[in-house]
Amino acid sequence: MKKANKKVDAAIIIIGNEILSGRTQDVNVVSISKWLNELGVKLEEVRVIPDTEDIIVKTINDVRKKFNYVFTTGGIGPTHDDITSRSIARAFNLSYGYHKEAYKILETYYGAENFNKGRKKMSMLPDKALLIFNPSSGAPGFIVDNVYCLPGVPSILKSMLGGLNSKIKGGKKILNKTISLITVESEIAESLERIQNKFKDVEIGSYPFFKQGKVGVSIVMRSTKLEQIKNSAKQIQSFIKQKKIKILRSE
Amino acid sequence: MKKANKKVDAAIIIIGNEILSGRTQDVNVVSISKWLNELGVKLEEVRVIPDTEDIIVKTINDVRKKFNYVFTTGGIGPTHDDITSRSIARAFNLSYGYHKEAYKILETYYGAENFNKGRKKMSMLPDKALLIFNPSSGAPGFIVDNVYCLPGVPSILKSMLGGLNSKIKGGKKILNKTISLITVESEIAESLERIQNKFKDVEIGSYPFFKQGKVGVSIVMRSTKLEQIKNSAKQIQSFIKQKKIKILRSE
Repeated sequence: MKKANKKVDAAIIIIGNEILSGRTQDVNVVSISKWLNELGVKLEEVRVIPDTEDIIVKTINDVRKKFNYVFTTGGIGPTHDDITSRSIARAFNLSYGYHKEAYKILETYYGAENFNKGRKKMSMLPDKALLIFNPSSGAPGFIVDNVYCLPGVPSILKSMLGGLNSKIKGGKKILNKTISLITVESEIAESLERIQNKFKDVEIGSYPFFKQGKVGVSIVMRSTKLEQIKNSAKQIQSFIKQKKIKILRSE
Repeated sequence: MKKANKKVDAAIIIIGNEILSGRTQDVNVVSISKWLNELGVKLEEVRVIPDTEDIIVKTINDVRKKFNYVFTTGGIGPTHDDITSRSIARAFNLSYGYHKEAYKILETYYGAENFNKGRKKMSMLPDKALLIFNPSSGAPGFIVDNVYCLPGVPSILKSMLGGLNSKIKGGKKILNKTISLITVESEIAESLERIQNKFKDVEIGSYPFFKQGKVGVSIVMRSTKLEQIKNSAKQIQSFIKQKKIKILRSE
């Protein structure tokens, strides 16, 4: 696939009362974000919103104009609180009803005798939606314009991402390098800021960690430009050496 | 503390490139949300945004007008990518500089001889910010109007929440009941919708699960009204019995 040179960005909209209530720990952002990194798409925003039609419609229409791609998670199952498909139809002013192709897929998957009302509901989609193949549990996701609707169940969502690779036109791959140090942030803050100011194309992050009895800081460099990452890393390693800070890991 | 009868709501703004890049799994939403449930405050939106001043300022000003309380996480440390304090000052059009009380706390915590530039930076706050006590690592959080700024490190954030209890005026406590069944969603979808339509004050959610070799559905009822939860649960239990569905857990 030919890669665009310009920046390509994305947002995720998590539709789910269960995330807002603290009942469920979201893990889909990490899955989608890592997959997007590989495709050269930068995740720029995530919103978690309730299962409320007006809010879903407003959020979709707000976010889809700002980013190249929008991914929604959740709300495409058979129960009354699954209202993503209906809301997307309203957001795009499309009719909402049985989608022939989705209907066939689900009827085959469950068998005609077990294809009850709840299951049929999963084939109600916005008019002309393109389907996203679901290798795990039959019910497809769908695409309308730049909005990609995925399920909330993490294992099913993950199984559907690979099939989308050819549909996403990414930019240059986002590369990264991490250097983990046994130090505290305030010891390296000034030197790091000096280097960040020199390398405008590298996003340098500093993240304290406390694990396995060790207190340290991970410095993360992210950029589409490998040379810039290498050069900034060289300068970071140089001040680390000068300050006699121990390196825990460099990867 | 006297409880308001009206609905009290909140939003969380996660300021962190490391969450958007997929490097770090957020766990603060669950901590804050569960704490807010106890206080009778309903979390209505979460946004994850990058460490970019203009975006932080715009998001703060957008969200703080919509909700009673806004909590930010991340970006209050000593390094160049920690720009929450500066951005909040700009959002509220306040001056930004050394905060006397925070400066004293940090100077005492580190000792005058170790109070370097990076550590001093953590006492630079919006003018007249109220401090949030940090029992774990010295550096305080802060409050401006209805915006509460907390650190990103989960263990430190958690240790600071309890100290805020007296500052949050919540509404009625949000109660919940969960019934977990060995079934699939499409088997219960119609009955559940009927009950949801009867109980407008109860938010009924249906969540499939796959764990320990079991496939099932958790039905979650949330409301500030205990009687309404009890009555809707009774009707749910009645159709479960009728359909001969096995109950895994009811709590």
